Formats: sequence, C-alpha cells, structure tokens
Amino acid sequence: MQTDWLDAIRWDANGLVPVIAQDWHSGTILMQAFANREALSLAVAEKRAIYWSRSRQKLWRKGEESGHIQHLHDVLLDCDGDSLIYRVEQIGGIACHTGRVSCYYQRLSPAGMWETSSAVLKDPGKIYSSVPKD
Amino acid sequence: MQTDWLDAIRWDANGLVPVIAQDWHSGTILMQAFANREALSLAVAEKRAIYWSRSRQKLWRKGEESGHIQHLHDVLLDCDGDSLIYRVEQIGGIACHTGRVSCYYQRLSPAGMWETSSAVLKDPGKIYSSVPKD
Repeated sequence: MQTDWLDAIRWDANGLVPVIAQDWHSGTILMQAFANREALSLAVAEKRAIYWSRSRQKLWRKGEESGHIQHLHDVLLDCDGDSLIYRVEQIGGIACHTGRVSCYYQRLSPAGMWETSSAVLKDPGKIYSSVPKD
Repeated sequence: MQTDWLDAIRWDANGLVPVIAQDWHSGTILMQAFANREALSLAVAEKRAIYWSRSRQKLWRKGEESGHIQHLHDVLLDCDGDSLIYRVEQIGGIACHTGRVSCYYQRLSPAGMWETSSAVLKDPGKIYSSVPKD
C-alpha cells in the first residue's frame, strides 16, 4: 500500500488532525479525537480506530483497556484535507467512558442548560479495571 | 437565557472548540469547523450555524454568501466538554463549497488512494457570486 495518501492531509502545527468516529450502521457520532501520521497509518493497517492522545502524549488504541474497540470500515477526508471521519463498528455498543453509546450525551436545553440526553448502558466501574482513560 | 453553559466548554488555547455539523434528518456528517465563544452564543441566539473562520479570523455565518445556511436544531457537547455537534437542517442540501452534500467526499481505497465517493449536485460557479469562501 502506498503512503502518498498521508501527504494529502493538512496536519496542524502539532502534526494532528481532528478525527470524528461515526457508527458505520446508525450514523451516530460516537466521539471526536485526534490522529497524527503514525496513529492514522496504524489504524488503516490494523483496521481499527487508533488516535493520538493529547493528554497522555501517546498512541491510543481505542478499547485497549475497555475492550470497546472500534473496527475501522472506512476513512473519509474532507474537502480541504484537514478533518477525517473513521466509520467504525463499535464493539460493545459503547464508545464513551461513562458507559454510553456516544460521548455526545449533553444537549443544550432551550433554557440554556446542558441536559443529559442518553442513558448509561453499563457501569463504568464494570468496564474498566482501573481509572477510565478512554 | 443563561450563559453559564458557555463556561462548561473547555475552549482550547486559541479559545476554540471543534464543531461537527450533522444533518438533523439523515445523520450525515456535513462538515467540521471551529467555534469560539461568540460564534457559539450567536449560533444559539440566531438558531443557525455560526463558526469562527481560522483562515479569515472572523465570524463565519455559514451560507452568508451561498445561501446554504444551516438551521440549528440542537447543540450537543461531549463528555469532556471539548467537542460540539451542531445538528442542523442544511438549506439547499449542500454543505460543501464543491457543490456536494458533505465535505467528506474523499474515501480511502484499499489500494491507498483518496477516491471521490459522492457527486457534485450543483456547479460551485452557480453557488457563489465570487470565489468560494465557505
């Protein structure tokens, strides 16, 4: 496989690009993180979602602790080359470390409050053996 | 309406947060841009997608030139408060300045090439009166 495709991406000043993880079947947006060149090339090679963790400054193989890995079906690039989508199959049906399907569970109400808009499917304490890092 | 909700957001060092625009009906991811505090508060007040253009360093009322405005139905915030979704109704059915539904029209092929995966619905020359800026 060629690697020229990595050069088409406009990495930011930190060598990163935003990545949106979208459920392959439902279209639900699961989470948003970042990838560097290594994370993206490994994700494609291993056919699973891999990110660059800015807080931990290391590669982040989604699900390495929780088991909630994301099988990578497709990678999409936007028109100006600075934003990606991973279209994934979310193993366990839970992307969020809070035990929800999606990380985007807070919805702004008309009164100007963040309201929880989706349920916890699994107790985070039962997902992780230690402190959640995902 | 309160503005406390703006304080819940973890703005980055430049005062920005990534915003994903998702079609309200289909779930299609249309584009990804950034908002600052002013863009987000105006978007909510005006019920339309407003971003902060990093290249132009100014507020970007999506569709101000093309007419392809995005009516804002919902704003979602992720678990760690540093990523947003605008759930929108895309007027004209075209979010991309290339005349496509979505900006994410390049898909990585198994051979490692970016392939165009969706069609141009409208000639960009007929969308914009001048050089596309959206």
